[in-house]
Amino acid sequence: MRSRTNFSHVRKSFRTQGIMKLLGAHISQLSKGIVEISAKSRQELSQQDGFVHAGVLATLLDSAGGYATLSLLPPDSRVLTVEFKINFTRPALGDTVHARGRVRTLGSRIAVCELEATIRRNGKWRSCAWGSQTIFCLRPEGDRTKEKRD
Amino acid sequence: MRSRTNFSHVRKSFRTQGIMKLLGAHISQLSKGIVEISAKSRQELSQQDGFVHAGVLATLLDSAGGYATLSLLPPDSRVLTVEFKINFTRPALGDTVHARGRVRTLGSRIAVCELEATIRRNGKWRSCAWGSQTIFCLRPEGDRTKEKRD
Amino acid sequence: MRSRTNFSHVRKSFRTQGIMKLLGAHISQLSKGIVEISAKSRQELSQQDGFVHAGVLATLLDSAGGYATLSLLPPDSRVLTVEFKINFTRPALGDTVHARGRVRTLGSRIAVCELEATIRRNGKWRSCAWGSQTIFCLRPEGDRTKEKRD
Amino acid sequence: MRSRTNFSHVRKSFRTQGIMKLLGAHISQLSKGIVEISAKSRQELSQQDGFVHAGVLATLLDSAGGYATLSLLPPDSRVLTVEFKINFTRPALGDTVHARGRVRTLGSRIAVCELEATIRRNGKWRSCAWGSQTIFCLRPEGDRTKEKRD
Repeated sequence: MRSRTNFSHVRKSFRTQGIMKLLGAHISQLSKGIVEISAKSRQELSQQDGFVHAGVLATLLDSAGGYATLSLLPPDSRVLTVEFKINFTRPALGDTVHARGRVRTLGSRIAVCELEATIRRNGKWRSCAWGSQTIFCLRPEGDRTKEKRD
Repeated sequence: MRSRTNFSHVRKSFRTQGIMKLLGAHISQLSKGIVEISAKSRQELSQQDGFVHAGVLATLLDSAGGYATLSLLPPDSRVLTVEFKINFTRPALGDTVHARGRVRTLGSRIAVCELEATIRRNGKWRSCAWGSQTIFCLRPEGDRTKEKRD
Repeated sequence: MRSRTNFSHVRKSFRTQGIMKLLGAHISQLSKGIVEISAKSRQELSQQDGFVHAGVLATLLDSAGGYATLSLLPPDSRVLTVEFKINFTRPALGDTVHARGRVRTLGSRIAVCELEATIRRNGKWRSCAWGSQTIFCLRPEGDRTKEKRD
Repeated sequence: MRSRTNFSHVRKSFRTQGIMKLLGAHISQLSKGIVEISAKSRQELSQQDGFVHAGVLATLLDSAGGYATLSLLPPDSRVLTVEFKINFTRPALGDTVHARGRVRTLGSRIAVCELEATIRRNGKWRSCAWGSQTIFCLRPEGDRTKEKRD
């Protein structure tokens, strides 16, 4: 199944997210159940102290978790974010952000992802946001893609 | 205290958030403990289905809650988001988003805000995201601005 | 539909929750989409400072939200907690706890509830915990009970 | 510092939590920044389907995270739960529950913990709840115990 191993359905969906383009974000890692999205830090993404805004991190993380889930599902599936919760554990000061989503649990309808953002400053990567996300999966009729639980 | 009743410290801080400008957002309501931020829906803010991206709603809501908290504090205070958790309760389809933050609890260090986004479609406003946020307050030395709890 | 207006399916299910008996909890309010569960504060429910333990509040709140959801569904439905997030906004010091769950959004599969606990001290009720909960609804085959959104 | 390496302040505090006794819980692992609390599954801890109630898991997890934080602080510190968010990722069916808290970030005032519960069924341990917790640290005057971030 070429489309599956290429994750072309994930990449195609990503390209339609207007906000990813506006933020200057791209997919920097893509494998089964793990997606990383990267963006350069810049003034347009900042809050009042010059850090990357918590909501920008949340935006990148939300897409990362959604696509990590979609990467485990057949091409004509859809995913919807039910909720996410994110702790901001360090000021997001640096030049590049990596936002990673990893599927921890995939049920027939509900997936739970771990989200973590790291930021590079002076060449060193540090965690700046960490949380969890619940995804609702709309699978194609009859699909029973293997479920996964940590 | 003119600066306080005008909330000029809130408005000034808001203008420095690069991301608010990028999203086309402005403060549409500002009173003690309540801030509403508004943005026009457009393709640049969308996810794959054309809805406003969950992270965009989170970004507007995070600033709304942060500034709702700052509106209760003296001008030289700072606020930092500890965490937020948001449920996305309806597809964010429509022409304009209102993101409201309201302080429920203000302690000496910790504030808790209620966040809610509504979107207007065919002239009707509907709730599309709802959640909670924890804020860490850095008050000026010696400040004991009256605390508030619902 | 007598069983529906009496909420007998809610009361029956509540009686099977061993933990409610252990905590000394009972349903003190029950209407469509709103359930309140009450318990006396006592040393057996405390944490190290003598306050009611955050987890006890969470337990009462989780059942309150679950049953608030079940109160809107047909008798042979089931509800499962997907997640909850609760802020503890005041030390839970007092003699009686009220834990209230209210359905904000009821979709075909997912309900979102608002949770709030109040505690009575010296005759006065004060909010001590507040949060949100996601419920997965297993409805009987073919059920399309009217959905509800705030 | 004998009291520190023995974690006697943690064990002493744990013994004063009435709810831990009521649930039949004990500390089964205790090291710097990691605490595991265990309890036997029994009917008194159940919800309506015979699973361990989500709130019981939350109670054990909340104490685990709180004590994981306290294990990194001087003996006369105090910890308070600001909030927690937990996903329930599998029915909690089995004979014994392990609830683990691990400190991910320790700042001067705020700690963030990862929480995870596993349950043993037919000799096999499986994850059934996972989430995050924010703790407020009240350190003794002048304390600057080394901060920690993942």
